[in-house]
Amino acid sequence: MDLQQELMQYISDSKRVSSGESIVAQHAQDFSHHPPHSPDVVAFPESEAEVASIVRFANDNRIPITPCGVLTSLEGHVIPVQGGISLDLTQMNRILEVRPRDFLVRVQPGVTRTQLNQELKRYGLQFPLDPGADATLGGMAATNASGTTAVRYGVMRNQVLDLAVVLADGSIIHTGGSAVKSSAGYNMTQLFIGSEGTLGVITELTLRIHPIPEATVAARAVFPDLDKASEAAYSMMSSGMQIGRIELVDEHTIHAVNLAKETSYTEQPTLFLEFHGSESSVQGDVVLGQELCEDEDCVDFVFETDTESRNQLWEARHDAALAVMQTAPDKKMKVTDVCVPLSELPKAIAVARQTIDSYGVYGAILGHVGDGNYHVIFMVDPNDKEEIRVADEINHQIVEYALERGGTCTGEHGVGIGKISYVEKEHKDTIPWMNRVKKMFDPNGILNPGKLLHK
Amino acid sequence: MDLQQELMQYISDSKRVSSGESIVAQHAQDFSHHPPHSPDVVAFPESEAEVASIVRFANDNRIPITPCGVLTSLEGHVIPVQGGISLDLTQMNRILEVRPRDFLVRVQPGVTRTQLNQELKRYGLQFPLDPGADATLGGMAATNASGTTAVRYGVMRNQVLDLAVVLADGSIIHTGGSAVKSSAGYNMTQLFIGSEGTLGVITELTLRIHPIPEATVAARAVFPDLDKASEAAYSMMSSGMQIGRIELVDEHTIHAVNLAKETSYTEQPTLFLEFHGSESSVQGDVVLGQELCEDEDCVDFVFETDTESRNQLWEARHDAALAVMQTAPDKKMKVTDVCVPLSELPKAIAVARQTIDSYGVYGAILGHVGDGNYHVIFMVDPNDKEEIRVADEINHQIVEYALERGGTCTGEHGVGIGKISYVEKEHKDTIPWMNRVKKMFDPNGILNPGKLLHK
Repeated sequence: MDLQQELMQYISDSKRVSSGESIVAQHAQDFSHHPPHSPDVVAFPESEAEVASIVRFANDNRIPITPCGVLTSLEGHVIPVQGGISLDLTQMNRILEVRPRDFLVRVQPGVTRTQLNQELKRYGLQFPLDPGADATLGGMAATNASGTTAVRYGVMRNQVLDLAVVLADGSIIHTGGSAVKSSAGYNMTQLFIGSEGTLGVITELTLRIHPIPEATVAARAVFPDLDKASEAAYSMMSSGMQIGRIELVDEHTIHAVNLAKETSYTEQPTLFLEFHGSESSVQGDVVLGQELCEDEDCVDFVFETDTESRNQLWEARHDAALAVMQTAPDKKMKVTDVCVPLSELPKAIAVARQTIDSYGVYGAILGHVGDGNYHVIFMVDPNDKEEIRVADEINHQIVEYALERGGTCTGEHGVGIGKISYVEKEHKDTIPWMNRVKKMFDPNGILNPGKLLHK
Repeated sequence: MDLQQELMQYISDSKRVSSGESIVAQHAQDFSHHPPHSPDVVAFPESEAEVASIVRFANDNRIPITPCGVLTSLEGHVIPVQGGISLDLTQMNRILEVRPRDFLVRVQPGVTRTQLNQELKRYGLQFPLDPGADATLGGMAATNASGTTAVRYGVMRNQVLDLAVVLADGSIIHTGGSAVKSSAGYNMTQLFIGSEGTLGVITELTLRIHPIPEATVAARAVFPDLDKASEAAYSMMSSGMQIGRIELVDEHTIHAVNLAKETSYTEQPTLFLEFHGSESSVQGDVVLGQELCEDEDCVDFVFETDTESRNQLWEARHDAALAVMQTAPDKKMKVTDVCVPLSELPKAIAVARQTIDSYGVYGAILGHVGDGNYHVIFMVDPNDKEEIRVADEINHQIVEYALERGGTCTGEHGVGIGKISYVEKEHKDTIPWMNRVKKMFDPNGILNPGKLLHK
């Protein structure tokens, strides 16, 4: 059948259903190194009703449907590996309601985090989760994303109070409510968070929002070795001070930044910090933070208060991935995403560095010291079988190392295409139940097939 | 069949299987006003293996099984309404592992929160959730409990990283891992939290633990009316300061305390506060907190630093329920547990007061201003049909008021026996899916039947 013609029954404006070469090619890939695969057609619904009718049609006709936002996924979630319909939700990008007095906001799934923060600024409020990319909130919920502020605000799982979800049969459900706390039955909201579009299509989110702290101070602390840096991080986290961000970057990554940006940062393990709170409390925390760093032989501790200087101070951290990309602009980025128990992080980072060195691979390592999640970032040519093999081997060793220590194969990027067999190992007890849940919500297997689970 | 004899096959020590009158009577009830119902037998397993074999036996023979801890439930969760086996997990009360460097602890379900905190103190760490009663951690996970510190640390849902669960067929699964963050598939841990023993029996928990703040200051602020008190609470929460607890008590409740304890607290709406953090940051927060309270015409602001004085300062809050109990020691306590969007709380508390006044019922109202959860506490004679009818009417009106505003019928106590029909209304979209989940995990309906769901 002519899929494009069929979908036009359900979408009022024909321009919002496309099989055009460039549109299809754009929706064949994401930020990851996973090989592209084109959808047969891309639909741009503008309403929940349009989503519902398209999903119902796909279900009735056994057509794969892959929801997507701005395509910043790092695990191939949005690649339509079985073709069919790419359901692009970026047209559903309205902020439906801001309730500052309830610290709540209601948004459509295509709203991006910076779009939301632009709107919230006037209220002195923010949506603080920062995965790096300007992802859509629907995509962030679908992968349980987080980022550098997780140590302070938690992950998407902690922000979502209610979801509107279109199920495989086209029915629409609300999973939660507007109360910050609830013990009313099995928590279905939590089941859809991190389900990567395999159980339903998120069409609306109710999210917690947070005050913009009265004061924010950024700091950078340089240490003789990884262990000292980690020890200082532990001391600060044990002190009960309000840490906004705490990131560990190893000496080789700083070296990469210096090369790429012609900067001259001290090439030693470095903690990048942010302290949040009231004016006076933050001043107290910075003083204490510096003391605790100096207790661990910190060789250099600088801090900045005004926004511009703060951003400059964090530049080396932000430029790390960029520095690696610049070494091979024609390739695509491979990012590992394991998370280990906190005390295992320094060793894990050192071992990860040895691993990529042993393969002669040039990469950056960034660690979220607040939660044990770290990323090894390097470049791969998706068309070079040998490079892919090496990339997979490196990832395999890093994942196995984490799983052996009770860690997870993915801290914040999700399973997607590449980590299904690792999840089967990590959650061997619950995989049969995950498969039953999938079968229950998507009996025909049309929702983002080929992702998260093998079946 | 002789259930006691049968169970002795699975429990080594016959003293741990009892049909003795006092033991059975003790396990027929909890803290709530719900009518008692005796189990046929009470089993006290000491190991996961014993739990597994008892549950398998119950499943094979279609015998109802009701897990319980120290019986402090406020919604009848632990009342064996269909008889059968009461599975008392208090003998499984070992702290299996403390991992201070990972901010993790592994415990058996019968460990109570104060038992855990006794052990953690030596590490400068704590498990901060405080539901009031010294509940077991297994019970707290089963009901997604929280309490006065939720504004700072969240609820049980935010603390549990892994559960060992015995399923209906006697198989044992682990649902999570030891990483603080994970996006590895559907989150089964979250499905069991708040499932009230209806999907499986929790036999082990891995929990996040937190540093004991360097400094804690308690404060009490008295206001001319509820709106001013709530406005001050909102200002403080908007400031981004680190609030440890923030509780609102209305003037009538203070009056009840003064009567019962012969104290002379100012009988006006009062905020009870705690500020947590480093020495210097807490000093800053107290100063700011006082300013913000005075902006709302606070008539009296007192704060205390040392532990004893802090406890004295909070006495009125802690004694509120006690004061109501003393008015009718022969009756049992009825506690409502709705949670509304934050901005709705002051009006909701005022309306709740009018409601109980209109029935001539004497009660206390306690509000968790940090999350919109509030409790109306009054005494009921379980054997007095008219009193029960009135209690149910009051509860009904308070719940309906909350649901109309997007709130929940239970913020932290759970569904149990009394709120099933309210959950059906609150989650009408997902109830069919909850029933499918129940059927999937407990096809024979032996796990805590009569709780959470009608089917």
